[in-house]
Amino acid sequence: MKNLVVMQSGGPTAVINSSLVGVIEEAKKSGKFNKVLGSINGITGILNNNLIDLGELSDEELKLIRITPGAYLGSARHHLPEEYLDYKYNLSGEYTTIYKNIKDNNIGYVVIIGGNDSMDTVDKLSKFFKGVNAEVNVIGVPKTIDNDLVVTDHTPGYGSAVKYIATEISEIKVDTSVYAKGRVTIVEIMGRDSGWLTAGSKLASLNGTGPDLIYLPEVPFSINKFLDDVKNVYEKNKKVLVAVSEGIRDENGRYIISSYSYNSINDVFGHQQLGGTATVLSEIVKNRLGYPVRNMELNLSQRCASHILAKTDLDEAYECGAFASKKVLSTTGKFITMRREDTEEYTVGYELVDVSEVANKVKVIPSDWIVNGNDVNDKFIEYALPLIQGEVEIEYVNGLPKYIVR
Amino acid sequence: MKNLVVMQSGGPTAVINSSLVGVIEEAKKSGKFNKVLGSINGITGILNNNLIDLGELSDEELKLIRITPGAYLGSARHHLPEEYLDYKYNLSGEYTTIYKNIKDNNIGYVVIIGGNDSMDTVDKLSKFFKGVNAEVNVIGVPKTIDNDLVVTDHTPGYGSAVKYIATEISEIKVDTSVYAKGRVTIVEIMGRDSGWLTAGSKLASLNGTGPDLIYLPEVPFSINKFLDDVKNVYEKNKKVLVAVSEGIRDENGRYIISSYSYNSINDVFGHQQLGGTATVLSEIVKNRLGYPVRNMELNLSQRCASHILAKTDLDEAYECGAFASKKVLSTTGKFITMRREDTEEYTVGYELVDVSEVANKVKVIPSDWIVNGNDVNDKFIEYALPLIQGEVEIEYVNGLPKYIVR
Repeated sequence: MKNLVVMQSGGPTAVINSSLVGVIEEAKKSGKFNKVLGSINGITGILNNNLIDLGELSDEELKLIRITPGAYLGSARHHLPEEYLDYKYNLSGEYTTIYKNIKDNNIGYVVIIGGNDSMDTVDKLSKFFKGVNAEVNVIGVPKTIDNDLVVTDHTPGYGSAVKYIATEISEIKVDTSVYAKGRVTIVEIMGRDSGWLTAGSKLASLNGTGPDLIYLPEVPFSINKFLDDVKNVYEKNKKVLVAVSEGIRDENGRYIISSYSYNSINDVFGHQQLGGTATVLSEIVKNRLGYPVRNMELNLSQRCASHILAKTDLDEAYECGAFASKKVLSTTGKFITMRREDTEEYTVGYELVDVSEVANKVKVIPSDWIVNGNDVNDKFIEYALPLIQGEVEIEYVNGLPKYIVR
Repeated sequence: MKNLVVMQSGGPTAVINSSLVGVIEEAKKSGKFNKVLGSINGITGILNNNLIDLGELSDEELKLIRITPGAYLGSARHHLPEEYLDYKYNLSGEYTTIYKNIKDNNIGYVVIIGGNDSMDTVDKLSKFFKGVNAEVNVIGVPKTIDNDLVVTDHTPGYGSAVKYIATEISEIKVDTSVYAKGRVTIVEIMGRDSGWLTAGSKLASLNGTGPDLIYLPEVPFSINKFLDDVKNVYEKNKKVLVAVSEGIRDENGRYIISSYSYNSINDVFGHQQLGGTATVLSEIVKNRLGYPVRNMELNLSQRCASHILAKTDLDEAYECGAFASKKVLSTTGKFITMRREDTEEYTVGYELVDVSEVANKVKVIPSDWIVNGNDVNDKFIEYALPLIQGEVEIEYVNGLPKYIVR
């Protein structure tokens, strides 16, 4: 029997560890693997031969890992080279190292829990192992709060992020309504290329505490239209709550904040690191409309607020992991997707697609779910509402959530 | 029997509505008041004769109000004039209006739930009513996440704010530890004049997930010392989590951000509106040390995160309100304080002090609780830990906390 190695890659979500536990528990239960190994810090764990035996974790530890934020195995943002053909000759090449360490550790199965960039790694690794007849299967488990992976109905991590975002928006809405004095509050929400997270704030409107205006990267952003929108709400209610995606762009596709040098550095995948969109918009409102304005970013907590997990999301993340451990025995180069079943009650089924169908593509919100460039409609609500359902009771010690770190 | 009027003032906390419900339920139970009225938007509700009958709220509504963030009655930041002596002659004077509306509404008792600035209102109103023999008692109920009121052991609102802050810090610590790559993360926490909230982040260290460095307004902030501290931790761990108070000042008492125009406007009480301290520090780290750095502010959620209330705090806030309804029958110009009892288990007693002892004073963290200018010790932990204990189960609808708005 061969060993299975699992790794986590890309930005964490609140439930990426639930997928990890799904992989581990199903793999152990099946009895089809020798050992379940963890690669520390994504693919770099294999490159550095930094692997740990996950079979030694107790049930109690696994239970805690499942609800702990971050990535228990550590993460990485590492792009493998495009070409592997030199793997036998280039002794310092990455594929050479991977080949050696995979063989040395008797690994026959690789599960990568990750987002868009990680699916690129699944694609390259599976092609490499196939190309060199290494008999190593590679499968990808979806993970991203951004919900921007194609084919799958949604991604694990999204539901919990939205539950946190909509809860915070709801609380901010109540809080900012207390004064008679007018005020515009602009809340910046993550989302570089798609507005799934920002649109999620809309769910708070079901409880009467939603944002007044929602701006998404899917719609070209016009400063003048935005100022008109704000003015209209302000004149009616004096309080304006704006939810805005960090990635809004003008009609030429330029990020609204790109004329500001602040924070506009590129990350290793060439994505622009965004931030400060709400700051820029609040300066514009202050200068052009003269209204009192406050801006804030929900920031990192959107992907790590394990104190308010969506049970649906946590469970689906687990099932995706468990499904990977089942399927990696017999298939490679695949990615796990969720299909929403056509049932009265919300249910999902788990499926496999070729990872090449997913890698490096972005799913955006359909245009007929967006209203007037500043809101989303019932189609979005119908889609997103099931994903945030259910609460997860977690253990508290010292008055704080009990998490586990490696 | 006379009516009691209750109002809320200053910035909301997650438990200011629990105090309100304490006032209402105890007042109703006692049978000593004709009606329990609510003044909308603090003292301006009395000035505008905008009062509502709180006796009509159902038990179900009161239960929801108790855990809802914001201020159910609305809030205000309004300074009464220093002098009331013209109240009989100046027909447009505020004291003239107050006198008339208090009499017209048969009010004999005033309860003001508020912070430092609101205690100034309690002081002025009680002196006014005494000075003109109006037989109206006025009592103040403490409220502020800042915990900076003197005499009282702590303030309602502080415990829940710290529970939220320490939870977020804990989650951010776990999240930011996932990459092998080094990074400095700077989290800005509220606190203009005192570091109680920022110090609260220390409690996460009990679970192994605390900040590495803590900077408080109590200690003059030195950029060079700060850079040395960051460098020391970075060279050891590569990951540095900094918790910094918005109100840190240099040795001349100047706010660190005051050389930056951004957000440095004054509010109506002459306090400088702060924000951007973490942004400024992160720019300094980037430029001077060249480390990758991320900054964030926990912002408004610190005072409205009712989805993670501290039960101890929620209950104490209620008891403060109930105690006010008992005491306002027979005393005026007083402020409710909590005394920590000298018992093995944490318990508090409720007492009254002259409001003039409290108004316009600030309580800071004792210097012997602060270590090396960048940490707090066990004395702080012993003080703060009991205040965040206990969880509050709240109801969810549509996957989100159920709150009530007026």
